[in-house]
Amino acid sequence: MTFFLHPRLEADSLWVHSFGLCQLRLLNDQRFPWLILVPQVAEVIEWTDLEAEEQSHFLAELNWTCDLLEIWVHPFKTNLGALGNLVPQFHFHVIGRFREDEAWPGPVWGCGTRLPYPDPQEQVETLRNLLLTL
Amino acid sequence: MTFFLHPRLEADSLWVHSFGLCQLRLLNDQRFPWLILVPQVAEVIEWTDLEAEEQSHFLAELNWTCDLLEIWVHPFKTNLGALGNLVPQFHFHVIGRFREDEAWPGPVWGCGTRLPYPDPQEQVETLRNLLLTL
Repeated sequence: MTFFLHPRLEADSLWVHSFGLCQLRLLNDQRFPWLILVPQVAEVIEWTDLEAEEQSHFLAELNWTCDLLEIWVHPFKTNLGALGNLVPQFHFHVIGRFREDEAWPGPVWGCGTRLPYPDPQEQVETLRNLLLTL
Repeated sequence: MTFFLHPRLEADSLWVHSFGLCQLRLLNDQRFPWLILVPQVAEVIEWTDLEAEEQSHFLAELNWTCDLLEIWVHPFKTNLGALGNLVPQFHFHVIGRFREDEAWPGPVWGCGTRLPYPDPQEQVETLRNLLLTL
């Protein structure tokens, strides 16, 4: 079976980098610094659908993503989550939160309307340059 | 430094079991089958505050918790998350979701008012018995 990215993830986020296991993507919403990890493995819905070795890789890539978020925006708090109620393909959110953001202290999911970046590709380049410093 | 459980976690959830790293707790809300893992390590706020070895233990305990949720309620979808916007102590949610639940397809955090179990200790015993079968 071949890996396909869910069309909603494709539409709402931009590809930043591919780690060994996951695609790192930027959600195109300037209200929140919001990264998404998508394991490039076919038919993964739940965390437990990943093999043990894939989970270990995921863990390393999650740590890199948390470090990237930290140097990118120095969040007050990091929110992690994998819901999949609307997009069943397993994807994991790593979101920087601030006491001044629109959803604080609630969760970001389902909060208001996404506000795209004026130049999303510029953000992607910023993230790629920061990744090189990790 | 000594590990202390945050008073809000203490008040809202019940101790079920202690794995090697985490305390497994049941959120006392009959609207959602909701388990919480709390690493019994002092001063952990973010995922990245855990040492590499602790993260590996966490991963194993997360898998057990997902398996426990599965045999407990056979959820339609499992939601995972670590927010900490209100309770900074690192804690990780493992929640069984159904298309008929009160918050579907939104997140459970911040949804309505918690509805305690009529006999929460009975649920705890059920979970302990199921843990023995894993």
